[in-house]
Amino acid sequence: MKSYKLAFVGFGNVGQALARLFLRKKAELAQRYHIAVTTVGIATGRHGTAVDPDGIDLERALALMDGGAALDDLSRQPVEGDILAFIRSSGAEVLFENSPVNYKTGQPAIDHLRVALERGMHAITANKGPVVHAYQELSRLAAANGVGFRFESTVMDGAPIFSLFREALPGARLLSLRGILNSTTNLILGRMERGDTFKQAVAYAQQIGIAETDPSGDIDGWDAAIKVSALASVLMGLPLTPDQVSRVGIRHIGPKDVTRAAEEGKRWKLVCSARRVGESVEARVAPEQVPSTSPLYSVEGTSSIVEFETDVLGPLSIVEANPGPDTTAYGLFADFLNLVQG
Amino acid sequence: MKSYKLAFVGFGNVGQALARLFLRKKAELAQRYHIAVTTVGIATGRHGTAVDPDGIDLERALALMDGGAALDDLSRQPVEGDILAFIRSSGAEVLFENSPVNYKTGQPAIDHLRVALERGMHAITANKGPVVHAYQELSRLAAANGVGFRFESTVMDGAPIFSLFREALPGARLLSLRGILNSTTNLILGRMERGDTFKQAVAYAQQIGIAETDPSGDIDGWDAAIKVSALASVLMGLPLTPDQVSRVGIRHIGPKDVTRAAEEGKRWKLVCSARRVGESVEARVAPEQVPSTSPLYSVEGTSSIVEFETDVLGPLSIVEANPGPDTTAYGLFADFLNLVQG
Repeated sequence: MKSYKLAFVGFGNVGQALARLFLRKKAELAQRYHIAVTTVGIATGRHGTAVDPDGIDLERALALMDGGAALDDLSRQPVEGDILAFIRSSGAEVLFENSPVNYKTGQPAIDHLRVALERGMHAITANKGPVVHAYQELSRLAAANGVGFRFESTVMDGAPIFSLFREALPGARLLSLRGILNSTTNLILGRMERGDTFKQAVAYAQQIGIAETDPSGDIDGWDAAIKVSALASVLMGLPLTPDQVSRVGIRHIGPKDVTRAAEEGKRWKLVCSARRVGESVEARVAPEQVPSTSPLYSVEGTSSIVEFETDVLGPLSIVEANPGPDTTAYGLFADFLNLVQG
Repeated sequence: MKSYKLAFVGFGNVGQALARLFLRKKAELAQRYHIAVTTVGIATGRHGTAVDPDGIDLERALALMDGGAALDDLSRQPVEGDILAFIRSSGAEVLFENSPVNYKTGQPAIDHLRVALERGMHAITANKGPVVHAYQELSRLAAANGVGFRFESTVMDGAPIFSLFREALPGARLLSLRGILNSTTNLILGRMERGDTFKQAVAYAQQIGIAETDPSGDIDGWDAAIKVSALASVLMGLPLTPDQVSRVGIRHIGPKDVTRAAEEGKRWKLVCSARRVGESVEARVAPEQVPSTSPLYSVEGTSSIVEFETDVLGPLSIVEANPGPDTTAYGLFADFLNLVQG
């Protein structure tokens, strides 16, 4: 049995779902993978910080978070300094970085991951910022320290996309990709097909907690642009920032457009695409009318899809339905298992 | 640079496509994977056998096959005995087994693979027979000899299905699957939507080389049952033979049924499914009317799809379009790379 010490930075919905997954899979990890884990530190934004080299009781931590309480009572030693000091002194072998995303700079997540990798920890994140802004630097840093940097959950919530190419498609060269990667706009377009105005559809998406108070990041295609940047940067090995993606949002699409498309057997979808052109990438995000013969057509609500063209297979699509914090947590868990199994 | 000696049993469309892929990827194998390969033996059904411990020129072998000639001229030593003797004496480290499939017994492919594994060779096949009839035995034999038994190309022509679970979805438990896995019936149903009678559609499928002279293996659901057996046996770890699959073919579906479904916005599809029930599997193959909200709806012609339910993600689908000998060959190539990279 090999034991691993874990630290969590950020313990919101995803961090908590990951903790529950480690608890649920404990017996299976032991029996099938001969792996045990101990959580030696949890640092949160608003619920304090806990450190215990002997292991924090995750069930108690989850109960405290449920009750809105701080985690400091679980700490077996005083916590001094900032998050970077927490990471450095945690003694962890694996960092799960789930701090809030900053699309513009990727910070402070990049610093968290950098410090962890420099200390020889595996660093795993669900945060898109560091992938878009520092993928090459963090990957090199990981390699130099003999550890891994992983981020499966940054695109399509834990569905295997990066690992598909890394582990299951050896020797394949990605030529282009095309997909629906932003769930808010997909949900809005679907509501408009059922009769909502644009405003009503946005209000609905906000009400069920999918869209943010300021929904422009989704509606104007920024979130989709960030995801297509992450995919192209990693899977094509060609750095691409979100502002290099040609980007049109869905603000100009009205109920009449949606109805007219339906009459022709088509659906409006916010389509992301990227294509290798020599040693660079051409990428765009724009609404398209998709026919029923396309695998994009049936992608409903918060589901997502990406279709890959490679030099070795016909078009290969991955479709994920019903995402949520639990599936994002699984992506982090899978990254962990893939890393520690080498 | 690590060098591997390969032997081919069967050198038809798929074996030749694999040889072309090894030629095309030669530089990439060397640079990116530090791997070189030498083909030390090729045994064919009707074009003789070639053996050369120093390496057979694959370009010459392909040219001979193209011209309908036998490969014996390429042999640097006399070939004596049967295929099993060929495998034993080949000196290969990897066997690519692509002999014709026998759905009832899995032979003679099972014997070929068994001999290779006993000799300490990795054994890779695109042949469904051995997976359905001897998966557990051959896997145990591989493990006992410190080598691998792989068969990615047996379902969905080289799209990553088995490797997805093995490499990219660690710790996931497969609960159920559902898909379209037989391209002949999918093509026939699609032609009927465009006005063909059942007979005309079958004749078309035969004419373009998709359906066999006796198309009953496809039309009566046997091929689909074999594929669902292979998926359940391997991915659920629960042995399932094709005759344990509840099976209804598409003979009773007429143009009127297809038209009526289209009027309701649906399409007839031959759907395979398997579901874990305690420690056994319930599996079936049967035509279903699929609505446009299903990812199965847009699967056209020879494309295929499988949707997986696991204990860790929402429904996850893999869709493959435009399969052919080249994509089947890639599955064999990916199996090889995954095996030799450990």
